[in-house]
Amino acid sequence: MGDSVKGLAVFGSTGSIGRQTLDVVRGLRQRFRVVGLSAGRNVTLLQEQAREFQPRFVCYDGNGSATRDVIGFEGVDCVPMETMATRPDVDIIVVATVGKAGLTSTLAALEAGKTVALANKEVLVMAGKLVAEAARRGHGEIRPIDSEHSAIWQCLRGEKNASIRRLILTASGGALRDKSMEELRRVTPEQALSHPTWQMGRKITVDSATLLNKGLEAIAARWLFNVPLDRIEIVLHRESIVHSLVEFTDGSLKAQLGTPDMRVPIQVALCYPDRVALPSVPYLDLKTVSPLHFAELKLDRYPCLALALEAGHRDGTYPAVLSAADEVAVAAFLTGRITFTRIPEIIDDTLNAHDGVADPALDDILAADAWARAHAENLVGATP
Amino acid sequence: MGDSVKGLAVFGSTGSIGRQTLDVVRGLRQRFRVVGLSAGRNVTLLQEQAREFQPRFVCYDGNGSATRDVIGFEGVDCVPMETMATRPDVDIIVVATVGKAGLTSTLAALEAGKTVALANKEVLVMAGKLVAEAARRGHGEIRPIDSEHSAIWQCLRGEKNASIRRLILTASGGALRDKSMEELRRVTPEQALSHPTWQMGRKITVDSATLLNKGLEAIAARWLFNVPLDRIEIVLHRESIVHSLVEFTDGSLKAQLGTPDMRVPIQVALCYPDRVALPSVPYLDLKTVSPLHFAELKLDRYPCLALALEAGHRDGTYPAVLSAADEVAVAAFLTGRITFTRIPEIIDDTLNAHDGVADPALDDILAADAWARAHAENLVGATP
Repeated sequence: MGDSVKGLAVFGSTGSIGRQTLDVVRGLRQRFRVVGLSAGRNVTLLQEQAREFQPRFVCYDGNGSATRDVIGFEGVDCVPMETMATRPDVDIIVVATVGKAGLTSTLAALEAGKTVALANKEVLVMAGKLVAEAARRGHGEIRPIDSEHSAIWQCLRGEKNASIRRLILTASGGALRDKSMEELRRVTPEQALSHPTWQMGRKITVDSATLLNKGLEAIAARWLFNVPLDRIEIVLHRESIVHSLVEFTDGSLKAQLGTPDMRVPIQVALCYPDRVALPSVPYLDLKTVSPLHFAELKLDRYPCLALALEAGHRDGTYPAVLSAADEVAVAAFLTGRITFTRIPEIIDDTLNAHDGVADPALDDILAADAWARAHAENLVGATP
Repeated sequence: MGDSVKGLAVFGSTGSIGRQTLDVVRGLRQRFRVVGLSAGRNVTLLQEQAREFQPRFVCYDGNGSATRDVIGFEGVDCVPMETMATRPDVDIIVVATVGKAGLTSTLAALEAGKTVALANKEVLVMAGKLVAEAARRGHGEIRPIDSEHSAIWQCLRGEKNASIRRLILTASGGALRDKSMEELRRVTPEQALSHPTWQMGRKITVDSATLLNKGLEAIAARWLFNVPLDRIEIVLHRESIVHSLVEFTDGSLKAQLGTPDMRVPIQVALCYPDRVALPSVPYLDLKTVSPLHFAELKLDRYPCLALALEAGHRDGTYPAVLSAADEVAVAAFLTGRITFTRIPEIIDDTLNAHDGVADPALDDILAADAWARAHAENLVGATP
C-alpha cells in the first residue's frame, strides 16, 4: 500500500449511501483501501462486504462484542465505531448512518483530525455547533455528501465566506408534489416512497415527500458553511438537475448540476481536491434535460418544512427534538400506524412540549433526543 | 492613497466596456484609483472622464503626442498605451479596446507582471499563445471580462485544470436567431444590432448575430483556460442567464448565472478574489427567469461560427486572419456596403487565400492581420 493510498472507513456500509460508496471505491482502488466497515442491521451484506474488501476493522450494531459473533473469519478486529473512528490507519470516514447513530464517532473522528465525508445530516442537525467545534479543535475536515450540500461545497471552492449572500437549496418537491391537500390524507407508504428523481433510503424518501428533509438540509447547511439560516433559501426545482446554488454579494450565482446519482457527490467528497472519471454514471446532456424550472416553494403545503425551519431558528436542542420526533413519526407511518398527515402533528406537538436548552452540551442533546422519542412514541400510541 | 488602493488603467475607456468599468469604479473608490485612461475616438468623452477621474496618464489614439493636443489641462502625462501599461503605479489594466488595438500593450503589461482584466478577446484570438507565454514569463495575471469567460473562470476557482472535461459556452443565438435563412439575406444593420439580451458595442453585437463572436470566444477560451478547442462546446441558451458552464471529469458541472449586465463580470475581474456588492445591478430572481432552455446549436445556420472554429483548428495565423477579415466585413455591413450574408463569404475567401504561418511570432501575426484587412477590403470593393 503506497503513501498515496488512503485508509477508508464506511459507517453505515449496508445502507443506500454505504453500498454506493463501496461501489465508487471499487473504481478507486489506487486511491483508497477499505480499512473499516460498520453496519447496524444487515448482517449478511456486512459479511459479504467484509469478505470482498478485507477490512482490518468491522463493527456490527455499534459495538465490538456483537461483531465477533457475526463475523465468521479471522484477521478482523471487532471494535466499536468510536474506536475505529480514531485509529491511525483510518484517514477518511464516510458517515452514512441514519439518525443519531454516528454522532459520537463523528465527533471523535473530527477531534482526532480525520476527514469525515458526511452523508448523515442529522448529525449536524442535532449537534452542528459541537461538530463544527470538534473539527476546529482537532483540525478535522468535513466534506458533505448530500447532493445539495455537495453542490454548495463545490460552488464555494475558491470563494470566501464573506462573499456569500445566500445559499439556495433546490427541492424537487418530493413524491407527492402534485397531490392535492385532500389526497395527502390518504397517502400510502408506497406512494410516499416513489421519489420522482432520486433513489434513496426509505426514511429520507419520506422526509423528501414531507420536505422535512429540506429543512434538515437548511439547518445542516448553516453549520457546514457558517451561514445564518435566514440567508438560506429553498426553491422548487422539479428536475433535480441543479443540485443547489450559491448567490454571491456581487450578484453572481454559481450552480452545480449533474445526473441525479449519489455516486457523484460521494466520489467528489472522497477525491477532493481531485476529480476522477466515474464511468458508471452517464455525463449529463444539458439539451435533453432542458428546460429547467425554478418556482416558489409554498410553505403552507409543507407543514413539516415550516416546523423544521422554526426549530432551526429556535436552535439549541429544538433541532434534535425535531429530528427525533420525525424519525419516530416516519417509522410509524411506514408501518401503517399513523397517516401521512399525522407526521407534522406529532412533530409539532413534540416541539411544543419540549423545554429547550440553549447552547447545549452533548448530554443535553442526547437527553432531548431520548425525551423526544419517548414523547413522540406516546403520541403515536395514542393515535386512534 | 493607502496600500490597499490599486492603480487602475482603462484602455478603451470611452467604449461600452470602458464606460461600464468607470461606472463600476465609481462604487469602488476605496479599492481603486484611476491612474490611466486611453481611448481611440471619442475625444469629448475622454476629456470628461479625465476631468472626473484625474488620472495621471492619458492616451488618445494610441500615442502620446496626439494626446497633448486634445487634453486641455495640466497635470496629466500624455504617453503611449505601451508606456502606460508598464508604469509602476499601474497595478491592473482593463483592456477594453476593439480588435488588434491593445495587443502590444497587453503583452507589455503581462511581461511587466501586471494584472490584465481582458475584455478584448481578439487579443487572445490573434496571439493567444504569445499572450499566455508573456503572462508566464512576466508573472502577469489575466482575468477575463467577457461574460462567458468570466463564468468559466468563476466556475474554475479552486479546481484543477486536469479536472476539466469540457468547457460549455452558452450562446443566446443573437439578434437574428428566429429569422429564416431567406430573411437573413435582407437583414439590415438595425436588425442585427438589436441583441435580445445584452447591451453591447456595435461590432460585437453583429458578431453575436453571426455567432462569429462565439467562435472567437471558443478560441480565446482555449488560451485562457489551457483547454483544447475540441473540448469546448457551444450550446444554445436563449435566456442569457447561465453565462457558461464547466463539465468536470467526474460528471459534475458548475455553471455561473446572473442578470445579463457586464458590470458584474467587470467587477468580478477587478475585485478578485473578493466579491463586493454592486447596488446598481439587481439580484437575479431564479423564479422569474424560469424556465431555462438549452438546445443544440445548428452550425449550418451560422456559417461564420463554422469558419471561426475551422480557423481555430488550423491555428497559427488563421485566427488573426479570421478576426481581421471579420472586422472589415462587419464594418462594411454596418455602412451598408455589403449584405449580411456576404460577411461569411468574405471571411471564407480570405481564409482560403491565406498562406498560414505555424507557431507565428508577433510580426507574423501583425503581417497576417494587415494582409487579411487588405484582402477583405478588396473583396468588399469588388462586391456589386
